[in-house]
Amino acid sequence: MTPGKNSDGASCLFCKIIAGEIPATKVYEDDTVLAFLDIRPVNIGHTLVIPKAHHTNLYDTPDETLAHMMTIAKKLSVAIKGSLNTDGINIEMNNDPVAGQIIFHSHIHIIPRFSGDGFKHWHSARDYNKDEDMEVAQKIKTFL
Amino acid sequence: MTPGKNSDGASCLFCKIIAGEIPATKVYEDDTVLAFLDIRPVNIGHTLVIPKAHHTNLYDTPDETLAHMMTIAKKLSVAIKGSLNTDGINIEMNNDPVAGQIIFHSHIHIIPRFSGDGFKHWHSARDYNKDEDMEVAQKIKTFL
Repeated sequence: MTPGKNSDGASCLFCKIIAGEIPATKVYEDDTVLAFLDIRPVNIGHTLVIPKAHHTNLYDTPDETLAHMMTIAKKLSVAIKGSLNTDGINIEMNNDPVAGQIIFHSHIHIIPRFSGDGFKHWHSARDYNKDEDMEVAQKIKTFL
Repeated sequence: MTPGKNSDGASCLFCKIIAGEIPATKVYEDDTVLAFLDIRPVNIGHTLVIPKAHHTNLYDTPDETLAHMMTIAKKLSVAIKGSLNTDGINIEMNNDPVAGQIIFHSHIHIIPRFSGDGFKHWHSARDYNKDEDMEVAQKIKTFL
């Protein structure tokens, strides 16, 4: 694989992990993807699934690669739930800095959740005004 | 499609949307999946991608269906980013109540993010103790 560069020109951290230049605690590997423990987990067992080829995030990851990342994320989630006795799993993919993306190499987070761990998701921040939802949907559809 | 039931025996809300019994603001539909605006969005354009067949969540959604849900989530994310001028996108899938799952019909959240919207993700809640990461990885691998 050709190592990727971040937008600042620095070598990509995840490409270095794939190349074996930086250690990681691996849990799964095949020709297309690598999965390893997040070095600073939200909860124990927090795992990242990354493509071996360098893609920035969701937007530029080829469909076939993305599909494989997600099916491996499912397989790992079932294994994490079984092995670590978690009560739930969040799958997350953060795209762009404002969404919390820190490493600019496409990755899916598998976050084990435990009752009472105190993490809360955003829910129902607002309502749509009259007809606003229709207008928003129409805008999106013109870009499909 | 056969409508699903929740664990309490009530008919599944998303199956009712698929059947046209409850209205929704649709943005995409094909034989396998339906995408529509979340009725109480985190941000404007918050979209859900659901399979037309009833599956509870990530764990029991067939690989092929899950892969298609994710590639459609990518397609929609690119469209949402382009049409609504968002600064980023969070992809999320919440599995089990402790992880924030409210409707027990498998679904991917596409959450548009805007600079300064104030939502924060959990990051780096703790570190691993010595050798703890190796032990956790070993546990997970025995379940793969």
